[in-house]
Amino acid sequence: MASTTDKAVSEALAAWNNYRNWTPLQIIDLLNAIADALDKAKDDLVPVAMSETHLPQARLEGEVGRASGQFRLMAQAVADPTYLDIVIDKENSTLTPPRPELRSIAMPLGVVGIFGASNFPFAFGVAGGDTASALAAGCAVVIKINPGHPIVSSMVGELMVQAAKSVGAPDGLISVISGLEAGMELVKHKDLRAVAFTGSTHGGRALFDAINAREIPIPFYGELGGLNPMFVTENAITARAKAIAEGFLGSITLGAGQFCTKPGFLIAIGANAINKELAQLVAAASPQRMLNERTQSLHDSIREEMLTVQGMTLVAQSNSDSSDASVTVMTISAGDFLKNKEGAMREVFGPTAVVIDCDSQEELLNIARSFSGTLASGIHAQTNDSTLPGDLLPILEDISGRIVWNQWPTGLAVTWAMHHGGPYPASTNPLFTSVGARALLRFRRPIAYQNFPTDSLPTALRDNSEALKSARIDGKR
Amino acid sequence: MASTTDKAVSEALAAWNNYRNWTPLQIIDLLNAIADALDKAKDDLVPVAMSETHLPQARLEGEVGRASGQFRLMAQAVADPTYLDIVIDKENSTLTPPRPELRSIAMPLGVVGIFGASNFPFAFGVAGGDTASALAAGCAVVIKINPGHPIVSSMVGELMVQAAKSVGAPDGLISVISGLEAGMELVKHKDLRAVAFTGSTHGGRALFDAINAREIPIPFYGELGGLNPMFVTENAITARAKAIAEGFLGSITLGAGQFCTKPGFLIAIGANAINKELAQLVAAASPQRMLNERTQSLHDSIREEMLTVQGMTLVAQSNSDSSDASVTVMTISAGDFLKNKEGAMREVFGPTAVVIDCDSQEELLNIARSFSGTLASGIHAQTNDSTLPGDLLPILEDISGRIVWNQWPTGLAVTWAMHHGGPYPASTNPLFTSVGARALLRFRRPIAYQNFPTDSLPTALRDNSEALKSARIDGKR
Repeated sequence: MASTTDKAVSEALAAWNNYRNWTPLQIIDLLNAIADALDKAKDDLVPVAMSETHLPQARLEGEVGRASGQFRLMAQAVADPTYLDIVIDKENSTLTPPRPELRSIAMPLGVVGIFGASNFPFAFGVAGGDTASALAAGCAVVIKINPGHPIVSSMVGELMVQAAKSVGAPDGLISVISGLEAGMELVKHKDLRAVAFTGSTHGGRALFDAINAREIPIPFYGELGGLNPMFVTENAITARAKAIAEGFLGSITLGAGQFCTKPGFLIAIGANAINKELAQLVAAASPQRMLNERTQSLHDSIREEMLTVQGMTLVAQSNSDSSDASVTVMTISAGDFLKNKEGAMREVFGPTAVVIDCDSQEELLNIARSFSGTLASGIHAQTNDSTLPGDLLPILEDISGRIVWNQWPTGLAVTWAMHHGGPYPASTNPLFTSVGARALLRFRRPIAYQNFPTDSLPTALRDNSEALKSARIDGKR
Repeated sequence: MASTTDKAVSEALAAWNNYRNWTPLQIIDLLNAIADALDKAKDDLVPVAMSETHLPQARLEGEVGRASGQFRLMAQAVADPTYLDIVIDKENSTLTPPRPELRSIAMPLGVVGIFGASNFPFAFGVAGGDTASALAAGCAVVIKINPGHPIVSSMVGELMVQAAKSVGAPDGLISVISGLEAGMELVKHKDLRAVAFTGSTHGGRALFDAINAREIPIPFYGELGGLNPMFVTENAITARAKAIAEGFLGSITLGAGQFCTKPGFLIAIGANAINKELAQLVAAASPQRMLNERTQSLHDSIREEMLTVQGMTLVAQSNSDSSDASVTVMTISAGDFLKNKEGAMREVFGPTAVVIDCDSQEELLNIARSFSGTLASGIHAQTNDSTLPGDLLPILEDISGRIVWNQWPTGLAVTWAMHHGGPYPASTNPLFTSVGARALLRFRRPIAYQNFPTDSLPTALRDNSEALKSARIDGKR
């Protein structure tokens, strides 16, 4: 008997063999139908998500809007044929050797497996950006439910299935499966063509290894997180230590510190002025209700381990009862940090962060060089700063998907220019973003058609196609 | 003491920290200087390549022009800022939450390791398309020399080093290393940021596994080859069996069958009419001088193994003395092929190919479904064909990087629209081409700059940049 996963993939493949021929207008209808269905079901979904995740109502309501907004942005992206990347070389028989006609277009990959995150049940969940971009790209999806919120995930899955049905999508185009084993079977399935994942480095690496061990490896787009270090110049501390401390605290406690863009490290020359401000602010901070008990207990134990690192001292810890997490800021000298990197440089899911105190610009640059790939990083600087921002920037470019100037990395705009990715372990493929309009580019690949009669070409490549207006022809656009 | 590889990568990294700031005009100068140097040295290079590879003079002379042409095409690609993929979202404080300014641009990856192929000492060698595209993308290169032609490879490497020096490039931007161990050390080096490879599935998979086992995995662009199946309709056989047999023979003997785009399999309903033509043509074919003795001996032994597959029979084999390879065409029924896939479906480097005879359209479609990823595939059809091309095309789209209609896959145009890649094992990343203008896209990745003062942005993103003319701004281009 076929397993649940095998059945889901087989049905998705059959559905895709219809869906691959859908026009952009049909795909736009599907994406908007799902967006509408999400908005309409908000009042039914949010209470279930609240009971499963402890996330507050206002945040979850906003997140439903963010999820539907992602489907609407994808509908806009599909309305612009640029994403088809049409390139045409005309036949030229005067060349040696003669050049044949070539028409190239990005075509959908096929069935995509999707693994949503625990911390955003909607925007990075079953109906998250990965699902929106894979469907926008013309792919079928089999989605593995995150065990952190199975009930609301099933509801969202069913809502998408119904929305797809309402616009005439083939059965099986969207389906959900659950369980660790089913997920592993999914990534190994011979008919799967790509995988998208948002989650931990540990879980992401396990999938990465399994996918690369396939006889036929397939693209794996894993977004595994970041330490998101933020650097502060001496002039910025002199000018606005209190504002920077407030901004940092606000950013590390947004969503109870459970964002992949949380700035886990603040690095400054003369950090004491900031620590002094943080000591007061953190002590007065509100308790933080985390996703669930397991998450909080993991957070607390990593925090305690980090506090035992040589040279690490507590700046401040907020009060909380046992059902909430404390906000915790600790500090360490640059020298001790570099000597104890393994213990001190950890990603903490929750409202805990580290301030690294440097004696010199050279020490601060060495700290910057010690970080691996990260979703974001940033600089707080003043216009009268001299060399530091310029010396630091190339180091941050080497490790970052996004670099923030005098702002904080949390609060991710879902737009055309957003890049949410970066070198490993920020993502497993640094050339692509998992958030924003360009996320759909992950799920199409170019095919060149040589010497084809126009009627046998994909519709968008035919002589009368509107999409050719976006094409590069003989090298010119 | 540092190893040769370590020294090369360290010097490349230091050079890159200068080269990353080069303007497009400076990069264009470098690319054209290398192209000029290749053309100028042709008469010195070709005799050495002839002595190392047995490839004929005219072919090698043409190949030098192809290699220099690739550098010139890359110079054109860099002259058009489209490859920078600039996307800008303006600040919008009226939104909830307020949207910060984001400017995204594709930036060079860093130091790239390159492994050239044995079969094209110039166009896919030390100064091949991978080197041209990595340099065009703003990356430094460390190139592992193919053992099939070490002397000419060293000459080409030195020629590029001198050309780079002549335009003021930093020392170490381009270097060559040799040896299997040095190559393995290269792909594992902590400062390497990507690898490009053209060669066998076996060798490519070994690098793929080593790169994915890194603590910090990096992008690997391997082009591993293809079986490049060609399908012929009954009407096409009726109309032009002889012309198809001639075209097939010409394609499988081009470069003595040592092209990654060689059509290894011809599949037809009623293939006997083609086999009859091939029997005569192949018997009269010229002997084929292969790259070296090892290559020929491997070719001969795989051919003999394939001839022992159940149901496989010889169509014809050309005469040759022991220093040349015979042209060999064998045939098998579709049923026997599917029953003995492991033995019959092999990539043969050299002038050997298989004709698969089908009884029905359904059988032919099943054969098509049995192929894995391939660089190319093709259809020979007539305008009066009814369902076959339409039923076959989606299957070929699933496996192919390029699909050829009534032509042959050998003879690869180096242009803007070319796609040379495809699902594994055609390539290890089906989203990118290794040939043509878009090959440079493999070596840059997007970085989003949030809320930056214009003077601290990369030059191309600043307010007064010419490159902004190519930008997408607030979703509009």
